[in-house]
Amino acid sequence: MTPQAPTPAYRRLSIEERRSQLLDAALSLFAHRAPEDVSLDDVAEAAGVSRPLVYRYFPGGKQQLYEAALGSAAEELRHCFDEPHVGPLLLRLSRALDRYLAFVEQHGTGFSALLQGGSVVETSRTTAIVDGVRRAAAEHILSHLGVVEPGPRLRMTVRMWITAVEAASLIWLDEGRQPPADELRDWLVEQLVALLEVTARRDPQTQTLIQALAGDD
Amino acid sequence: MTPQAPTPAYRRLSIEERRSQLLDAALSLFAHRAPEDVSLDDVAEAAGVSRPLVYRYFPGGKQQLYEAALGSAAEELRHCFDEPHVGPLLLRLSRALDRYLAFVEQHGTGFSALLQGGSVVETSRTTAIVDGVRRAAAEHILSHLGVVEPGPRLRMTVRMWITAVEAASLIWLDEGRQPPADELRDWLVEQLVALLEVTARRDPQTQTLIQALAGDD
Repeated sequence: MTPQAPTPAYRRLSIEERRSQLLDAALSLFAHRAPEDVSLDDVAEAAGVSRPLVYRYFPGGKQQLYEAALGSAAEELRHCFDEPHVGPLLLRLSRALDRYLAFVEQHGTGFSALLQGGSVVETSRTTAIVDGVRRAAAEHILSHLGVVEPGPRLRMTVRMWITAVEAASLIWLDEGRQPPADELRDWLVEQLVALLEVTARRDPQTQTLIQALAGDD
Repeated sequence: MTPQAPTPAYRRLSIEERRSQLLDAALSLFAHRAPEDVSLDDVAEAAGVSRPLVYRYFPGGKQQLYEAALGSAAEELRHCFDEPHVGPLLLRLSRALDRYLAFVEQHGTGFSALLQGGSVVETSRTTAIVDGVRRAAAEHILSHLGVVEPGPRLRMTVRMWITAVEAASLIWLDEGRQPPADELRDWLVEQLVALLEVTARRDPQTQTLIQALAGDD
């Protein structure tokens, strides 16, 4: 969209613009309500459009809307990991975590409902979307660490940390965003370093990495 | 059951014994196959009983059988955490982890299918069973640590580690039980200590705990 373009309710949107408008409306509803409590009618109301229009875009109903919104959120989440390969590693990680925590904060309830599972709309397709983001996060971290062929111990450490970060995010939302995002970010970064140090005791590849991290400012 | 009691196929079992026999048969099938691929007929065959008999115990079908088997596995998993409150803390934790990893190894595929979600038979009830075990694990650890009122940072650390242990178990099963269980156990124990040390930098309660752990052999 052109930055200064007017967007009155009656402006004709392209199919892509309309779809994206509806998904934004859905995501903002999911941020405060569990997915199963958001109807297509709610989305129509939030977006200020007619019900038939929403049904035209999502003929598969609530489930289709939810999967599309999830796909769009997953895409946004992947962008959090886009970080140039320059500068100190831990600083890059901190910046990515800042974006991730802002995303978690913005999407609130929808993020929890999805990751905690047990939602009535959870299916193997939604699980696959979430797993794809997890895998992407692990690949990003390993590529920033500059490891060409990560061995199983290093890979497992990174995947465990990602799971722990997810758990921390859910608890953080549950506990009214305490501790403050800045503290949580530093804590998580230090945890990754500590986990890598433990792995380094039994894995030469991780040992080399830790030495590189120590000399990296 | 009395240890020396004969168990020919035609012996009359009590309702509880029969139910437990069927659940054992189901759990051994879930160890090698995803829950959705196990039918009540398969369970009848594995237990050497008639199909109508299995249907009589589980009139709700596959879903009911799965939930009952999961409940029984959760019960068994909780027993892994039963550890007397004596001796060095990290040794107690090691023993509990040994039992946990033996459980994971024994239940294999069924354990993965359940925790990875996306199973067709997953429901909010099964999620609640799994969450109950997670909560029990956290309570056990905190009680062994001897902390009367764990603050949010200590509690979050323990919950993050439990999630990381789960992730490690799934990866471990995926990768043909590598590294060996003994190494994985020691690695996980050292990770908890490392995470607590990081938390101790910003949490006096955890700091006190770390000092206690250091003097505890």
